[in-house]
Amino acid sequence: MKWTEVSEQQCSVARASAVLGDRWTLLLLSDIFLGVRRFEEFQERLGISRTTLTSRLKLLEKHGVISRVRYQDNPPRHEYRLTGKGHDLFPVLSTIINWGDKYYTDDYGPPILRQHINCATDVQPILCCPDCHDEIDARSIKARRRPERKGVPDVRRGPVVRSGK
Amino acid sequence: MKWTEVSEQQCSVARASAVLGDRWTLLLLSDIFLGVRRFEEFQERLGISRTTLTSRLKLLEKHGVISRVRYQDNPPRHEYRLTGKGHDLFPVLSTIINWGDKYYTDDYGPPILRQHINCATDVQPILCCPDCHDEIDARSIKARRRPERKGVPDVRRGPVVRSGK
Repeated sequence: MKWTEVSEQQCSVARASAVLGDRWTLLLLSDIFLGVRRFEEFQERLGISRTTLTSRLKLLEKHGVISRVRYQDNPPRHEYRLTGKGHDLFPVLSTIINWGDKYYTDDYGPPILRQHINCATDVQPILCCPDCHDEIDARSIKARRRPERKGVPDVRRGPVVRSGK
Repeated sequence: MKWTEVSEQQCSVARASAVLGDRWTLLLLSDIFLGVRRFEEFQERLGISRTTLTSRLKLLEKHGVISRVRYQDNPPRHEYRLTGKGHDLFPVLSTIINWGDKYYTDDYGPPILRQHINCATDVQPILCCPDCHDEIDARSIKARRRPERKGVPDVRRGPVVRSGK
């Protein structure tokens, strides 16, 4: 199967991965959340080629994750800002940073500290249940296909149910 | 700059992205969290070529995210299991699924429902402060470089501090 076919699947992870599953895109998003907005700034910080940077910014714009906004008229200059859909990627980037901070930092700890403004604590945000607010990990969640109903397409890649071994 | 140089940077996002920044890898991890363990199962579910699948499994094994375990001796058969480091990716996959479920599902809602076992509620896990347990979004966090100290390498890609415009 070609990637384009996979990303057309109903599976929401497949479609999300079509946007996020790229190294430069993740770095770019991380920089955007750190306040970077302009083409030359991205280029300088990431050492990325103009062609690659342009293609990644276009992809994010096409998917409505960022928007290109004119901030100066003469000469015309543009910058890139997160849309609401882009802001909704904050948990994804946060959890990637947590994981990177745990397994890939140098001996001096995380390069960037993240303070929770409300309680003034440096934090690594955790995953919680929106209902009971308990912390959530892989073992606290049980996945199942959505119920079959008439007219509703079947789920192609549901959880595995193992009988015996 | 070449990607290999970027992934050697101290920036933990760069290093984490070297593992996660690939479409097939994200789909593969999503399947592993759904209980898939065997080469042929991955291949069948993802429609991925043997070569691509092999390279992605090897990368994940090299980074200690999964381990290859023999489950049968005659003939020898192996399966792939998450390590502790792999289980720590659960929040990353969960937040990607949340985002995919919000923006990329069909008209019938999320294909896979996730129940929090403790409280028996179908949930989309949220990001919380580990200290005060408030929900966290982009606006509730302030990022800063780690303090400069003698002998500690400078942070290459810290948050942007804007003066004026």
